[in-house]
Amino acid sequence: RGAVLAALDLSLPSWTAQRSVSSVTIPPPACMLLPLEVPNRYLFGPGPSNVPPRVLAAGGRPIIGHLHHEMYEIMNDIKKGIQYAFQTNNHMTLAMSGSGHAAMECAVFNVVEPGESVLVSVNGVWGERVAEIAERMGAKVHTLVKAPGGYFTNEEIEKALAKHKPVLFFLTHGESSAGLAHPIDGIGDLCRKYDCLLLVDSVASLGAAPLLMDQQKIDILYTGSQKALNAPPGTAPISFNDRACHKMFNRKTKPVSYLFDMTHLSNYWGNDGKPARDYHHTGPVSGFLALRESLAILAEKGLENSWRHHKEVAEYLWKGLEDLGLKLFIKDKDLRLPSVTTITIPDGYEWKELLAYMIKHHQLEMTGGLGPSIGMVIRVGLMGYNCSTSNADKALAALSDALKHCPKRKA
Amino acid sequence: RGAVLAALDLSLPSWTAQRSVSSVTIPPPACMLLPLEVPNRYLFGPGPSNVPPRVLAAGGRPIIGHLHHEMYEIMNDIKKGIQYAFQTNNHMTLAMSGSGHAAMECAVFNVVEPGESVLVSVNGVWGERVAEIAERMGAKVHTLVKAPGGYFTNEEIEKALAKHKPVLFFLTHGESSAGLAHPIDGIGDLCRKYDCLLLVDSVASLGAAPLLMDQQKIDILYTGSQKALNAPPGTAPISFNDRACHKMFNRKTKPVSYLFDMTHLSNYWGNDGKPARDYHHTGPVSGFLALRESLAILAEKGLENSWRHHKEVAEYLWKGLEDLGLKLFIKDKDLRLPSVTTITIPDGYEWKELLAYMIKHHQLEMTGGLGPSIGMVIRVGLMGYNCSTSNADKALAALSDALKHCPKRKA
Repeated sequence: RGAVLAALDLSLPSWTAQRSVSSVTIPPPACMLLPLEVPNRYLFGPGPSNVPPRVLAAGGRPIIGHLHHEMYEIMNDIKKGIQYAFQTNNHMTLAMSGSGHAAMECAVFNVVEPGESVLVSVNGVWGERVAEIAERMGAKVHTLVKAPGGYFTNEEIEKALAKHKPVLFFLTHGESSAGLAHPIDGIGDLCRKYDCLLLVDSVASLGAAPLLMDQQKIDILYTGSQKALNAPPGTAPISFNDRACHKMFNRKTKPVSYLFDMTHLSNYWGNDGKPARDYHHTGPVSGFLALRESLAILAEKGLENSWRHHKEVAEYLWKGLEDLGLKLFIKDKDLRLPSVTTITIPDGYEWKELLAYMIKHHQLEMTGGLGPSIGMVIRVGLMGYNCSTSNADKALAALSDALKHCPKRKA
Repeated sequence: RGAVLAALDLSLPSWTAQRSVSSVTIPPPACMLLPLEVPNRYLFGPGPSNVPPRVLAAGGRPIIGHLHHEMYEIMNDIKKGIQYAFQTNNHMTLAMSGSGHAAMECAVFNVVEPGESVLVSVNGVWGERVAEIAERMGAKVHTLVKAPGGYFTNEEIEKALAKHKPVLFFLTHGESSAGLAHPIDGIGDLCRKYDCLLLVDSVASLGAAPLLMDQQKIDILYTGSQKALNAPPGTAPISFNDRACHKMFNRKTKPVSYLFDMTHLSNYWGNDGKPARDYHHTGPVSGFLALRESLAILAEKGLENSWRHHKEVAEYLWKGLEDLGLKLFIKDKDLRLPSVTTITIPDGYEWKELLAYMIKHHQLEMTGGLGPSIGMVIRVGLMGYNCSTSNADKALAALSDALKHCPKRKA
């Protein structure tokens, strides 16, 4: 090293004398000299949900370094909390430093190589996104398409697996743009039969609708922090089983993203068995503290209680909506997502006016559709901390009030 | 739409009757039933820094939706705060939903197309990372290499620009792995002469060392939230000037990442002139609240005051370190990064023992080198909220104590 250092010339170069004098020409903006204002609001859309005080407090604690050993302990807790929430024993379990979309890209980038075949079920916005992500990284993308609210039978899936021989099949468990909870049973077996990995998006369903990663033979599962888990958005639990690890750690090419490369992320999360964790990126420390707390709340409550609770409140909400004369977009109760309910836009109303009325007069958020379901539905989410019959009553009262006061535009 | 909906078969399919009964087999982990513990610690490494109570409080406020109009106002404030901090009038200014590495990948992914030539200056870990990122997405990568602590003269840069004809030249302003503040003047002109974009990393320097994006003709600039800005890690300000926008919005291929595609991100930040902002991903709402507060603190204090303050405290620290008999790794004061000081590892000591001693006995973090500077240096960062002579005294006392109590292992 001495030779290397000696080779450096750190003396003052002549051109530094020409360095211009720094001069600030752009003044501080007036808006930044005013205090931060954030309204209090009922977040009864498809997420983010309201964050309980306990989780806010955890996220607002003084931080430590992302590479401190106490942080590793917290990350180990998070890993165990995710394993519980996912019902998996997968070693390769961690939280992405980003939203559900980061997890989505991470999954596709790591298990697929350019030129490989990918099958994506598209029955709302999430499949559209995965198809786009896979196309961008050079995969051969095949889609199974239904209109929002549609689902895929195992027969349809098997036929497509046999035809396209994909290395990866993507399915959304909680299709929040349509309010659909897609059946999962049997699909894992089909994927194994055709030597394909099963990737499931549970962003909108985790903790709200039954999902058992290992028993249902899901190879890769991810979710977001801001739905039924009630943490702020910005972290995304993800898990890969041995089949997925075998594929992603035996690839010929490097994943296109360094940030989402699971070789590095697994080391950062202490999953690769190496004694030392190398610096990869700076994780969102506050986000991890909040995520740990939200997973702790789920562990304390218990998954089955959480599923039952979401189902009961959802059924209470559904009955209330029907009592208001509204139609639910998903007719089959068994296919309804308990966390996000979709209402067919009532005849004659402009959906944007209804939503704006509820925000203005009730400080209460519901949302319209997303992607292909825009203009079809209004969405009400009661997730985790927000999941209670008293909140369902608030939502029903706001909607009833909006229906009374908003004009009917059409016949 | 009626026809589309009518075409859907939402009746109960026969196979749902075969759905297995959900059964939780993995119990809640014991560790998650214990309270979260986070030690209080002086974060005097290269970041994250301690977050001031005011910023923690902002990040711990009840959240609103990422697409609420009040959130757009907060994002507009953030944009103006970044424009001030960067000293730029660039319209295409925003904060990434991720750490500095997300901004790094975003910049490369958007302005470079596969097969194009990229020139990367490597004098520490950050250039290594950019070279790796550009290689992965298919660019022809050329590097200018110096050992940690080395810098590049404008003559060297011009020669390489002429030789490699890159579309992008990357330079680290605050090379935190070596403690070097790289001169910037004149490089923007050179890049324009050779029709190349200048991308500068100011993660470790922004707010601490003078940098004027527009005047210094930097085409793309990014930083992180967790250094002199003192917000928690997880957001990363970035700005593109018109030259950079022209290149990235006239490309033939789509950027490989959907999440980091500036076409979508510029819409999300209201920068594309369209009246509506479409859903792209869920931004880290709490992270944005905290970032706004940290930018407000910088606006209140004033950039020049912040630069002066960092310089004064750094000089105080440097003198104190020399009084302890320690050698500074960067000999030329004008090339020293005021936010992160690098100390040559004192003869005979094991650097890991010194660091562990300070953590254990002083709850005070300093760190070792990073990437190529590992084993060369100990790094002390006093940034933003942490930047005070009293904190410099704490750092000096801890280091002095460690030098007294840690054994000398070598002659």
